[in-house]
Amino acid sequence: MIEDFSAVEVIAAKRDRNELSDAQIDWVISAYTRGVVADEQMSALAMAILLNGMNSREISRWTNAMINSGERMNWSAITRPTADKHSTGGVGDKITLPLAPLVAACGGAVPQLSGRGLAHTGGTLDKLESIPGWRADLSNEEMLKVLQDCGAVICAAGAGLAPADKKLYALRDVTATVEAIPLIASSIMSKKIAEGTSSLVLDVKTGSGAFMHDPAQAAILARTMVELGRNAGVKTRALVTAMDVPLGLTVGNALEVRESVEVLAGGGPSDVVELTLLLAREMIELAGISGKDPEVALKDGSAMDAWRKMISAQGGNPDAALPVAREKNQYFATEAGRMVSMDALKVGVAAWRLGAGRSRQGEKVQAGAGIELHAKPGDDIKAGQLLMTLHTDEPERFPRALEALVGSVSIVAGGEVNRLPLVVERIQ
Amino acid sequence: MIEDFSAVEVIAAKRDRNELSDAQIDWVISAYTRGVVADEQMSALAMAILLNGMNSREISRWTNAMINSGERMNWSAITRPTADKHSTGGVGDKITLPLAPLVAACGGAVPQLSGRGLAHTGGTLDKLESIPGWRADLSNEEMLKVLQDCGAVICAAGAGLAPADKKLYALRDVTATVEAIPLIASSIMSKKIAEGTSSLVLDVKTGSGAFMHDPAQAAILARTMVELGRNAGVKTRALVTAMDVPLGLTVGNALEVRESVEVLAGGGPSDVVELTLLLAREMIELAGISGKDPEVALKDGSAMDAWRKMISAQGGNPDAALPVAREKNQYFATEAGRMVSMDALKVGVAAWRLGAGRSRQGEKVQAGAGIELHAKPGDDIKAGQLLMTLHTDEPERFPRALEALVGSVSIVAGGEVNRLPLVVERIQ
Repeated sequence: MIEDFSAVEVIAAKRDRNELSDAQIDWVISAYTRGVVADEQMSALAMAILLNGMNSREISRWTNAMINSGERMNWSAITRPTADKHSTGGVGDKITLPLAPLVAACGGAVPQLSGRGLAHTGGTLDKLESIPGWRADLSNEEMLKVLQDCGAVICAAGAGLAPADKKLYALRDVTATVEAIPLIASSIMSKKIAEGTSSLVLDVKTGSGAFMHDPAQAAILARTMVELGRNAGVKTRALVTAMDVPLGLTVGNALEVRESVEVLAGGGPSDVVELTLLLAREMIELAGISGKDPEVALKDGSAMDAWRKMISAQGGNPDAALPVAREKNQYFATEAGRMVSMDALKVGVAAWRLGAGRSRQGEKVQAGAGIELHAKPGDDIKAGQLLMTLHTDEPERFPRALEALVGSVSIVAGGEVNRLPLVVERIQ
Repeated sequence: MIEDFSAVEVIAAKRDRNELSDAQIDWVISAYTRGVVADEQMSALAMAILLNGMNSREISRWTNAMINSGERMNWSAITRPTADKHSTGGVGDKITLPLAPLVAACGGAVPQLSGRGLAHTGGTLDKLESIPGWRADLSNEEMLKVLQDCGAVICAAGAGLAPADKKLYALRDVTATVEAIPLIASSIMSKKIAEGTSSLVLDVKTGSGAFMHDPAQAAILARTMVELGRNAGVKTRALVTAMDVPLGLTVGNALEVRESVEVLAGGGPSDVVELTLLLAREMIELAGISGKDPEVALKDGSAMDAWRKMISAQGGNPDAALPVAREKNQYFATEAGRMVSMDALKVGVAAWRLGAGRSRQGEKVQAGAGIELHAKPGDDIKAGQLLMTLHTDEPERFPRALEALVGSVSIVAGGEVNRLPLVVERIQ
């Protein structure tokens, strides 16, 4: 292959605030995947993109080039309409777990390729792996069979899907170039478009526990991704939702599975139920399914049936006891009053320090580690009341986890609750 | 050693337009030199510095950290005052060759650590290596002996001098992060300060053939370096000088040595003589030498004697015939009139394409390749007059070299010469 460009020339163009041409983008992604463009060159380009930006044509081309670096999945054998959801990640965000079987129970096919957690945000695969026997790694044939039989599959993306993104994502993680909207948007959307879903609902988190602290930035990211989806022929919508406070009452792998099963059984914390139903209705509508009420599917047990079938199909035992951490510790209120806020980031960092999360790719996580919340913003608190229970297999982790929780809740006598609405913005 | 920082944290600080602390700078340079900070992390940081800048405290600390990554030279055994010069590089810039022995002849000690050429700019060591037998690589002991015996030494910097800069310079070259004033200034000054000279004159080039095309940018670079020198206790001055037109009448290694020897013999092109004398006077004054006129030292043969002694001391034969390229080609004027301009960059690129320069570090250069100029801006030209002679060992190189020369000279009947003054600005 003749190399049409030099890496230095492409980096210099973006450094000097010029637009990259389609040919330059195609070349640099292909050459990076082949190892012709070196990691140190791509990281310099990523920093230039982070600081100087890309316009929508560039982002769209960049996304396509990453898709073209690998295979595209094909669900033409599936007769049901495909619908997928992606969350940008947060603390206690277990929504995929009840949502995928719920949409399956309503007649959708949900091919949910998920990831693992990094830092304070959890990963769907880590959560499901706390179920004894459950396997995240499926061949394309196995994936198709689970999807056909159960209406939903949640598994790891194969190595063939957008390999350029896999390589680039690992690089961005160690070079402080994660926080670039063009790179975040193209990373997510290249995988989702290559995955072959015909409709997609994006849950873009905002607040302290999210990538995008600022709702305005989250909305820009959401709009960028919706445009990328549309350009690729995928029906795409986005909700910008709250991640200033952890979702639900549990943070940690097995703890979140337990809470998800409660929701599928018709119970569970109100915010998790509300967001699950909101996203399910968006997915169902976008997939063109009519006459199905997801609230009914939660009450009548059909969503739970889809969950049990899906977990079993991937080797898991839905009736097995979930792992429990060996050690517990308790965190109490030191004053009385109204709980006006709870910092998702601080709670997420504490759960990470307890062993629920990882600091670098490939690190093991503890299935039982994490935090149970016994109160949320809006609750009236007595001095000395139990606020959180901390779980870990390694008690030496407690001091640094408790340190992370300092200032995590504000309790003010007669105070007003200060938090984002669950849905900050809806983009379609 | 305990790592006090993470690379991601330091990169993110500069990415977010924060100042780096002294401790962060010390750590990142040391950790990069030790391989703890990876190339892809340093290149992202370099791009963030290029785009977001560093203040003078940061640049000063960065420079010191690079000096501290290696050894410092010590000339306390030398009784003469040490004086050094550095040029940021240009086309036909052979000034170091006559200048070092000239200042030696006036009573200075010139410890001139030089580099090799890259792209269209030539390197002092490449030029001198066209002299049969001459060696650039000297041990510290050999260097001291040549300096003591001859008053000047021109050689390669040893591996022990600012190793962080060596590693970073090679990285910047492939990641489009060369053109950052903080990084250029700290790279040059870390080597010059570690080299241990007590006075330093900087020749900062500006115009098409220089790094810094824009005189205002060149002046900023010059001021930054003068401040770094002062802070380190080195008496430092800078001249911003013209590099819109090639210096002298030769571009290429052996061709430039020949012209330098002409200057040392009391002849040579007027611009080369003028700049050599200007820089010599600055160096002599800064070194505190009085009662010496460098013009006399050129006329009375004492500068030539110092040259011959220095070349011999480094294994070279000053009487040997210089290499001559095997093939020649000629470039003629197609119209009549006044030559109003000559583009240094185009001439430099043509010489590079003839084999006088290299595209990547370590590549061999041709000793005899290059260009002789038979006219300069201000000359009246006849149609068909010979303007340049091109030299190379490989005649297949002529077409692309001639292509680079298209538009290199402007000839306008009755036109006004359009060029920078030799000295654009003097900074002390």
